[in-house]
Amino acid sequence: MENFSLGIDLGGTKIATCIIDNNGNIFARVEMPTLAKEGPEKVISRMKKSVYDVLSQINLSLNEIAGIGIGVPGPIDVEKGTIQNPPNLPGWKDIPLCSIMFREFNTKIIIENDANSAALGEFLFGAGKGVKNFIYITISTGIGAGIFIDGKLFKGIGRNAGEVGHMTINFEGPICGCTNSGCWEAYASGTALSRFAKEGILSGIKTKIIEKARNEEITAEHVFSAARKGDNFALTLVENEGYYLGVGLANLINIFNPGLIAIGGGLTQCWDMFYSKMMKTIKERSLPANLKHLEIVKAKLDKDAGAIGAASLAFL
Amino acid sequence: MENFSLGIDLGGTKIATCIIDNNGNIFARVEMPTLAKEGPEKVISRMKKSVYDVLSQINLSLNEIAGIGIGVPGPIDVEKGTIQNPPNLPGWKDIPLCSIMFREFNTKIIIENDANSAALGEFLFGAGKGVKNFIYITISTGIGAGIFIDGKLFKGIGRNAGEVGHMTINFEGPICGCTNSGCWEAYASGTALSRFAKEGILSGIKTKIIEKARNEEITAEHVFSAARKGDNFALTLVENEGYYLGVGLANLINIFNPGLIAIGGGLTQCWDMFYSKMMKTIKERSLPANLKHLEIVKAKLDKDAGAIGAASLAFL
Repeated sequence: MENFSLGIDLGGTKIATCIIDNNGNIFARVEMPTLAKEGPEKVISRMKKSVYDVLSQINLSLNEIAGIGIGVPGPIDVEKGTIQNPPNLPGWKDIPLCSIMFREFNTKIIIENDANSAALGEFLFGAGKGVKNFIYITISTGIGAGIFIDGKLFKGIGRNAGEVGHMTINFEGPICGCTNSGCWEAYASGTALSRFAKEGILSGIKTKIIEKARNEEITAEHVFSAARKGDNFALTLVENEGYYLGVGLANLINIFNPGLIAIGGGLTQCWDMFYSKMMKTIKERSLPANLKHLEIVKAKLDKDAGAIGAASLAFL
Repeated sequence: MENFSLGIDLGGTKIATCIIDNNGNIFARVEMPTLAKEGPEKVISRMKKSVYDVLSQINLSLNEIAGIGIGVPGPIDVEKGTIQNPPNLPGWKDIPLCSIMFREFNTKIIIENDANSAALGEFLFGAGKGVKNFIYITISTGIGAGIFIDGKLFKGIGRNAGEVGHMTINFEGPICGCTNSGCWEAYASGTALSRFAKEGILSGIKTKIIEKARNEEITAEHVFSAARKGDNFALTLVENEGYYLGVGLANLINIFNPGLIAIGGGLTQCWDMFYSKMMKTIKERSLPANLKHLEIVKAKLDKDAGAIGAASLAFL
């Protein structure tokens, strides 16, 4: 068996590609912007280039790697190896990514949805190592999860389990991107956080968030940055973020009685700022018996979880 | 191996006891009131009597059965065989039911929580037969679930998974028995339905529910009975029941991507009256991909699911 594997994490904003060994150690790594607006052909060219780049970083040839795993935004068809129509990859529709990459590299190619890839990375080499009942949650543009039951990634009958971002936490709540109302994602994702910020600003609230954003679109990062400067409105938004995270996590705790929850994704850069409100809410809303064996931690692999997890697919 | 097994379903209002063969066919059956108010000693005496009664119905001796399985209200300690402190069994506190029953009958005794027992009955001999990703939901006083993943009852790390009744569907909602606010159970259980009825009546709404209840405490059955007579307020309540059921079920569909959901418990006596609103809500709130392979049915074993499931424990 080859001791190296190559993983690509295809995101809406960046492509992260790495080579790992079978202990999850990174030996080579490149990152480039996705420039998703340019459409699938150009994005795929960049993905190919990223593969050649990491290989050449450590002078490895294609037949020295176990294969290429690719974490991509869903929905995908794992068996056909196609990417269907991810909302944050404009112009992609049933793109046969596996065959395209196979024609280029002539090695094993496996695709998996990005939340599952990152979850797999955390399960094999990160916070979830050796934990049988483990839930990985990623909080960024949206909210995704990878759920491990008895040491196996749980996929459901149509391979679409774990869509926890579209769990209703307030049926009277705001409309979500999925057209449903009151989804967890409509309250606790990065997109929701920036929406709450914009709504407050439009209603006349004075806040440093505007200075942070300058002429750019307001993002979760601007909110966090203003909160770190002591801005009251930003601090309230971050506290609310902790509350909304806690509500959804308590649901998962009551349903799954997990041993460990690891939280990753961009919003964890403010882990210290929402942690205590999140934990308080979890304690208030979970059944005491379900908290007994539970640990909640920040994911360990950070922004590399997706690429490491994708690479590990080729080892399986 | 013995071909018969004995099961007891210990509920807050009745004790149902039966003998089944290993195809789930019932050969003997007794039912008696729990009279829970009289406390554990008297209730356990009645349970013992129910065992002797079913055995004598078909002239079977204790050494001709595989054992006795008992479905009981949680929380329980399966390993110690104790019932901890179920809200609807007053006076029960860490009762070592397994050893008490073993001293009496000197055969294998197994206890399991009531929702899991009923789920097991439906999985082995009812609606869920042969379905690998199957969720059984029981809607009565509370809401419980048994979740089967890859053909195995999923219990979580502390054997307390499946507490779906305490999933928040509106974090601004009414207080639940668990002290949390906006639990599914606080909207869609029988208890919630009777609460909505009482609230309406107190606010001055004219309704036939009062006639149905006469001087008794208003129950879900009174609401259903008034709705069948065309009472407008009762019809609205039943329609709302369908909506609330749909919201919670959609959450489970998005999270588990199951192949089959079977719904049992007392409230399914009005299945025909809330079915269409429930299904409409499910379709509105579930991801289309997660509906593709899904079937939603009424449970098959009806009120015997618990006792049959309990009996099947002794076969495992």
